[in-house]
Amino acid sequence: MSKEVNVLEKEFLDYIKKMQAYEEALALIYWDLRTGAPKNGVEQRSKVIGVLSSEAFQMSTSEEMAKFINELSERTEELSEVAKLSLEECKKNYEKNKKIPAKEYEEYVILQANAESVWEEARAKADFNMFQPYLEKLVAFNKKFISYWGYKENKYNTLLDMYEPGVTVDIIDKVFGELKDVIVPLVKKISEAEQPQTDFLFQPFPVEQQKAFSHEILKQMGYDFNSGRLDTTVHPFAIGINPGDVRITTRYDENDWRTSVFGTIHEGGHALYEQNISKDLVGTPLCTGTSMGIHESQSLFYENILARDLAFWEKNYDVLKKYASGQFDHVSLEDFYRSINEAKPSLIRIEADDLTYALHIIIRYEIEKALFNDEVEVSELPEVWNRKYEEYLGIRPENDGEGVLQDVHWAGGSFGYFPSYALGYMYAAQLKNAMLKDLPNYEELLRNGELLPIKEWLTTHVHQYGKTKKPLEILESATGEGLNAKYLGNYLTEKFSKVYNL
Amino acid sequence: MSKEVNVLEKEFLDYIKKMQAYEEALALIYWDLRTGAPKNGVEQRSKVIGVLSSEAFQMSTSEEMAKFINELSERTEELSEVAKLSLEECKKNYEKNKKIPAKEYEEYVILQANAESVWEEARAKADFNMFQPYLEKLVAFNKKFISYWGYKENKYNTLLDMYEPGVTVDIIDKVFGELKDVIVPLVKKISEAEQPQTDFLFQPFPVEQQKAFSHEILKQMGYDFNSGRLDTTVHPFAIGINPGDVRITTRYDENDWRTSVFGTIHEGGHALYEQNISKDLVGTPLCTGTSMGIHESQSLFYENILARDLAFWEKNYDVLKKYASGQFDHVSLEDFYRSINEAKPSLIRIEADDLTYALHIIIRYEIEKALFNDEVEVSELPEVWNRKYEEYLGIRPENDGEGVLQDVHWAGGSFGYFPSYALGYMYAAQLKNAMLKDLPNYEELLRNGELLPIKEWLTTHVHQYGKTKKPLEILESATGEGLNAKYLGNYLTEKFSKVYNL
Repeated sequence: MSKEVNVLEKEFLDYIKKMQAYEEALALIYWDLRTGAPKNGVEQRSKVIGVLSSEAFQMSTSEEMAKFINELSERTEELSEVAKLSLEECKKNYEKNKKIPAKEYEEYVILQANAESVWEEARAKADFNMFQPYLEKLVAFNKKFISYWGYKENKYNTLLDMYEPGVTVDIIDKVFGELKDVIVPLVKKISEAEQPQTDFLFQPFPVEQQKAFSHEILKQMGYDFNSGRLDTTVHPFAIGINPGDVRITTRYDENDWRTSVFGTIHEGGHALYEQNISKDLVGTPLCTGTSMGIHESQSLFYENILARDLAFWEKNYDVLKKYASGQFDHVSLEDFYRSINEAKPSLIRIEADDLTYALHIIIRYEIEKALFNDEVEVSELPEVWNRKYEEYLGIRPENDGEGVLQDVHWAGGSFGYFPSYALGYMYAAQLKNAMLKDLPNYEELLRNGELLPIKEWLTTHVHQYGKTKKPLEILESATGEGLNAKYLGNYLTEKFSKVYNL
Repeated sequence: MSKEVNVLEKEFLDYIKKMQAYEEALALIYWDLRTGAPKNGVEQRSKVIGVLSSEAFQMSTSEEMAKFINELSERTEELSEVAKLSLEECKKNYEKNKKIPAKEYEEYVILQANAESVWEEARAKADFNMFQPYLEKLVAFNKKFISYWGYKENKYNTLLDMYEPGVTVDIIDKVFGELKDVIVPLVKKISEAEQPQTDFLFQPFPVEQQKAFSHEILKQMGYDFNSGRLDTTVHPFAIGINPGDVRITTRYDENDWRTSVFGTIHEGGHALYEQNISKDLVGTPLCTGTSMGIHESQSLFYENILARDLAFWEKNYDVLKKYASGQFDHVSLEDFYRSINEAKPSLIRIEADDLTYALHIIIRYEIEKALFNDEVEVSELPEVWNRKYEEYLGIRPENDGEGVLQDVHWAGGSFGYFPSYALGYMYAAQLKNAMLKDLPNYEELLRNGELLPIKEWLTTHVHQYGKTKKPLEILESATGEGLNAKYLGNYLTEKFSKVYNL
């Protein structure tokens, strides 16, 4: 007595629409918590988050969901494309969530929370021993999860797949290797070259003026203020609540305008992605960026490739001067351009420049891969970390606070996440290369502040698809080939040869 | 095989906690929609509202709810006070919602939406004929609802009870009658007296300075900025999302600082109520103001009784001058005091002063009562309206746009709502009178800007109870007597005799 497939499809779509409604309410709550929700209301708000997220979670693992998956999976050829792909997404989540015993998952969630607060203290005290037992447990849990979920070829692939579906250790080993071969010698050359002047960057630049300039650049990029807003927070972020409501935040440093301006452009890149997802996907789990890496490709394309291009500033340097209080009056465009592209090895990932950043990521990738293949123990991490920094960047942390303890990711159990940052940068350079074929006047567009054709190209090839295509599908259909590290390698070589007159 | 009552009570409390979680998410969504949500996201957000509110509604009328009501109602003496009162509240809603056939209610909701948009156009065109058929249907629906719900003594009582439980036509007839007997002659006398000078009020007062002054006053009142925030909107409001998160908004008119300052104080009065509800009630339907009228008593107490008192300005006039740009430099405190208490008859309720406001309400009450007792037809309303304005206020609308069409309430089907405004004012005056017995130094407190004991008195006698006491119970336990119009009558007589040197 099975239902007509179209009736069942309709029921399934209604069901996921409801789940997405909870997710949307949660997204708004998160945005609010980070942009000024009164602190005394937070405790009760957390309970609301608990109710809504457990409702959404239960729906994702319910018997009703199981029924949809069972009955519709056999007849996918009769389903609409959106229903079919949504079903796949739901199935993936269902299996992922169902395979972990509830009790174990609960323990893990508690461990995560404790680990994060211990990590915070350990980092402040630069005391790895304090954090080590927690990290060991987190790794052990994740190894067990991998055993539940299964893996192909390499255990670490299962973790990578959560952030960058389809991208494997084989692929990353190859591209990160090639990248390292370009960046490590480049970093060495640069450190011996004449350094750009940068002192003029750090003059007081009134916050309101920084804000006005950021607004102007966002508009130039094609960020739609009728589908978003810009607020101030300590930790900047972009959040897609729905495609008509994609908000970004930034922070302002009066003595370093780059924080807000490049930060806003970065979040703006994320936001353009979420604003331009096809409206057909609203109310489904497909209505979001397809992966961390593709998301990062959008933010890094705008922040690094576009907004650190000389042509971009041929248009915008005068605009910037208009908002600034005279700090650039005696600085040539060339010197300005060199200053915002300064690169030098440093210890802290989130403060790294655009050239050395990938090395920070590669180090983390190599460590995670070794960890999950039992080639290194948690207790050895500080030493391994420091050795790699010395080898790749030529500098060595003086303590674990500025070394292995610097990132929150592992404390939150997010293994497999880091590679996405560098993958995103590679995607960005590869997409730029493909874009140039369709927009041979790219530089001229930048010079004229005509950034809309660029956004449109990205919408056509990336944004619109949401999660209906996997990362490498996006890349391949946009660029005609698989992931290729040479584009980022070439981009970095050309760029920094120019900046440093190599 | 009935469950232990304590198990069932726990299940019931969890159940209503979940309902309240949906309500809290909805409250945040409403706040966000009114304070700058991007317009392109609204359509999808409305669907989220639909999902969450229908979920909450279904829970309020579900079989599970029926089971709780049936099984727990018989054993209320075994329940905690909070559970018992929550159950009563749920039962009341259950019965109210269950008695209307679903299909009829659906039709009514659609009618409301259409009526509001027609009303908007009709008001703009001052065309009552356009709106009349919609109003007729709205009245007819409400009459039918009354027949489903039943009534005691007067059909209109059923509508009153939705906004002001326990307050009946008998009570209102008496107090409104007494009030009218005081206000109508007072208005007449005042119109013949020397008018206060007011021109100095309408000078440019920078918005940022108005904001800073409003902040200072809110702090003086005891509004807790760790449990709230102040934003800007076209239509000011206060919203209790939870007691630790009670937000207010205001609007700024550069040429009339009174809009923001008295508006903020008004909303601040509402907010103090919601901020100081007992934490024991969080997560239950009792965690909100007990009625429209009691809520309004708090806002009107602060806005009119406290913040238009001479003693209040003995402290704050100098503060105001500090923020203003010289407009009060040559204005004595006495003249200032008279200017902010100017009273004269006008046609539009929301622009009315503190003396004549009650007359606007009395007119609406008399009309609604007549409507639901079949003593007047919808078609006759414009004429009835205009006649009453002439009789009570001495002025007659020139068209229905500034007459019977001015308020949105009827277009939204909110019959029985209006009386709360004037009841609130009466409650406020009566509460003030009782407060004086405990705080004989009330005026001195105002003179010193020490408003916290006043807030504490209100918390002790009103705020903390949330919805655990009915409006008249609050009033009686705080003041030792039932609703008595003489307090407001005396207050208005004394106040305006002083202002107008009668």
